Amino acid sequence: MNPYILGLQCTMCQQIFDPNQIKTTCPICGDAGILDVLYDYEAIKKDLNLHSLSSNQDRTMFRYQQLLPVEDKHIDKMLKIGWTPLYRTNRLHHALSIKQLYIKDDGQNPSGSLKDRASAIAVLRAIEENNPIIACSSTGNAASSLAASAARMGLKTYIFVPKRAPVGKLAQLQIYGAHVIMVDGDYKDTYNLSKKAIDHYGWYNRNAAINPYLVEGKKTVALEIAEQLHFQLTDWVVVSVGDGCTIAGVYKGFYDLKKLGLIQTIPKLLGVQSEGCNPLVKAFHTHSPCQWTEENTLADSISVGVPRNPIKALHAIEASHGSMVDVSDQSILDAMRLMGKYEGIFGEPAAAAALAGLQKAIKQQIIKPNESMVIINTGNGLKDPQNAQRATKEPILMKPDLDTLIAHIEQEGEHKHE
Amino acid sequence: MNPYILGLQCTMCQQIFDPNQIKTTCPICGDAGILDVLYDYEAIKKDLNLHSLSSNQDRTMFRYQQLLPVEDKHIDKMLKIGWTPLYRTNRLHHALSIKQLYIKDDGQNPSGSLKDRASAIAVLRAIEENNPIIACSSTGNAASSLAASAARMGLKTYIFVPKRAPVGKLAQLQIYGAHVIMVDGDYKDTYNLSKKAIDHYGWYNRNAAINPYLVEGKKTVALEIAEQLHFQLTDWVVVSVGDGCTIAGVYKGFYDLKKLGLIQTIPKLLGVQSEGCNPLVKAFHTHSPCQWTEENTLADSISVGVPRNPIKALHAIEASHGSMVDVSDQSILDAMRLMGKYEGIFGEPAAAAALAGLQKAIKQQIIKPNESMVIINTGNGLKDPQNAQRATKEPILMKPDLDTLIAHIEQEGEHKHE
Repeated sequence: MNPYILGLQCTMCQQIFDPNQIKTTCPICGDAGILDVLYDYEAIKKDLNLHSLSSNQDRTMFRYQQLLPVEDKHIDKMLKIGWTPLYRTNRLHHALSIKQLYIKDDGQNPSGSLKDRASAIAVLRAIEENNPIIACSSTGNAASSLAASAARMGLKTYIFVPKRAPVGKLAQLQIYGAHVIMVDGDYKDTYNLSKKAIDHYGWYNRNAAINPYLVEGKKTVALEIAEQLHFQLTDWVVVSVGDGCTIAGVYKGFYDLKKLGLIQTIPKLLGVQSEGCNPLVKAFHTHSPCQWTEENTLADSISVGVPRNPIKALHAIEASHGSMVDVSDQSILDAMRLMGKYEGIFGEPAAAAALAGLQKAIKQQIIKPNESMVIINTGNGLKDPQNAQRATKEPILMKPDLDTLIAHIEQEGEHKHE
Repeated sequence: MNPYILGLQCTMCQQIFDPNQIKTTCPICGDAGILDVLYDYEAIKKDLNLHSLSSNQDRTMFRYQQLLPVEDKHIDKMLKIGWTPLYRTNRLHHALSIKQLYIKDDGQNPSGSLKDRASAIAVLRAIEENNPIIACSSTGNAASSLAASAARMGLKTYIFVPKRAPVGKLAQLQIYGAHVIMVDGDYKDTYNLSKKAIDHYGWYNRNAAINPYLVEGKKTVALEIAEQLHFQLTDWVVVSVGDGCTIAGVYKGFYDLKKLGLIQTIPKLLGVQSEGCNPLVKAFHTHSPCQWTEENTLADSISVGVPRNPIKALHAIEASHGSMVDVSDQSILDAMRLMGKYEGIFGEPAAAAALAGLQKAIKQQIIKPNESMVIINTGNGLKDPQNAQRATKEPILMKPDLDTLIAHIEQEGEHKHE
């Protein structure tokens, strides 16, 4: 374990535990008592500062190892996760009539999503705990990122999926050599079987909110954004929200940097959900506890009716003086095209939701057009070709004849000499 | 244009032309007279050397701008292409009983393939020539990479596809805002219409072999491999071969480095084709001209019955003292699983073909197990989920019951306590 870690603090009762004794949630508050990792920032400052960063040759998330709950000894064998591009937009900010916009393209991670950052930590923690098998229940980015990093490091994975899981997504897991357990039941049956099996066999548990360390991996996206902006942050950072772990991670990254004196202010966080599945948006705006909602959106990566990390997520938004919005599926599809057309970046629907949310927040005057902002593209569009298809129309079939083509192009009014 | 360029030399008649006057192929030899870019290496040495590279902060293909046919002024606005990971294998070399193996993961490029390197050059050349529209005929990686880079830089693209093109691939192009012209005919009709339209409108032409500059972009994969190995190269570099431009680019990169004195010897190149489409393998082993062959393989990115760059490709293999092999579709699917299972890298079939070729070359004693080698993963497996599905079996459906699961795992003989 990283020697700079002081303990694990319960987000409910605030009590602090020894990470060598407590592995998952708070022993007093139970599963709802999600733990937060505490660091000795004064000690870390000596090792992690502007000077050390400027000479650090590691272009992965592990350039911030002092702030991660892992030792450094296996890092060089890992997949190259993180240090993804932060693009200042060339054209999209004009299209949106805003001043300054950046896109952090986390779809460029090895398995194609931000979740690689969390899975990297899970794999390294399992190795440090001498546990050769990791399990999770998911069909999405959490599972594929776990399968990829575990394969690279020689760990076995058991991945529990419900029977309705799309065969294409399972194929990716199986290519990475995961043992896929397809359960004849719904998601709840699947999760319950995975929990029983994890308890029975003692496998390492990568089911998100229960594990205190995964958020620490996710926070590296914020550390990178800050460093790539030379610690001159934008007014806002915009990210889509499913179970709440990612936005909690983004906040934690900025919090760490403030504690280290590398930034003065944490940017306002805009959390975006889909109108078809918006439990955290409702909880945020009504100041009431998070309620179960339906899961009715094409943005599968943020389709979480029972968010497992509401406390950390809502705290992140409030503490940053941020806000939340929800967006329609149609506006998500439109945003996919905008990001592709103006910047050459192909995001999955959950990623495009962040852009759609930004547009809505501007319209609602939550964000002002002269404020600066970063959107996080949380996943690669290649993960979800079906929705890319829904976002576009099939092209018109044309005779192989130049005159027909010229007529078509003139009709479009788009030939070169215009 | 880069001031270090001395001229364009015809690979047939050897005559040298002025790049300001000749845009595509040799005016004497016609379309077969593919041109090669000549550089003033003695002058480049002063700017590009071990010292300059060690302080170069650009982690993209453009860190080698002196060796590229483009100016440096638009580079910072481009997508972050290149400087993809070179992994030393953790486990795959053991599985293959070889000593030292690396995988260059070019599936990590922004649009998911090595072709991003060529399209970046096409886009920058079009900008330098004040041409706001680029065209090509392709449904594959060439088209998607062009659409992505052109979108980022605000250029319009016309992409010609035959009517049999898969809708999923078209959706990706359309997300990037490409104008897709779907031609009611086969690939030849499509290509011919694109040629007529390019001539008529004066669009910039990204059809591969005809354009002398695209190979220059592709060569950056070799420049990176060399630098990432601290210029201590492996005995072999293995890459799959379609129209021959990629392997020609790999050779050109190593040739440049030899001319600059950064390496002493060019590694042997192993070119791999599919048994179902192997015109260059036949030409290489029979020392006869390249003949048209059928296109009958699942590895669509290398399914090219009429390779457009046979001269440069065969020269690359011969001059490097390399060889060629062809591999079955089944061995390609097996190699996809091997690369995923042992290294957590998901390659498209054409990429896995390189690994399958390596295995065959070892069996045929072309490559010795104590030789070192690099495989180039030319494309991301997410581009082709259908073939990933073919490579794997659907998992068995299981009752949501712990005893059933335990029985299943014990049968597999793979529980933790073994």
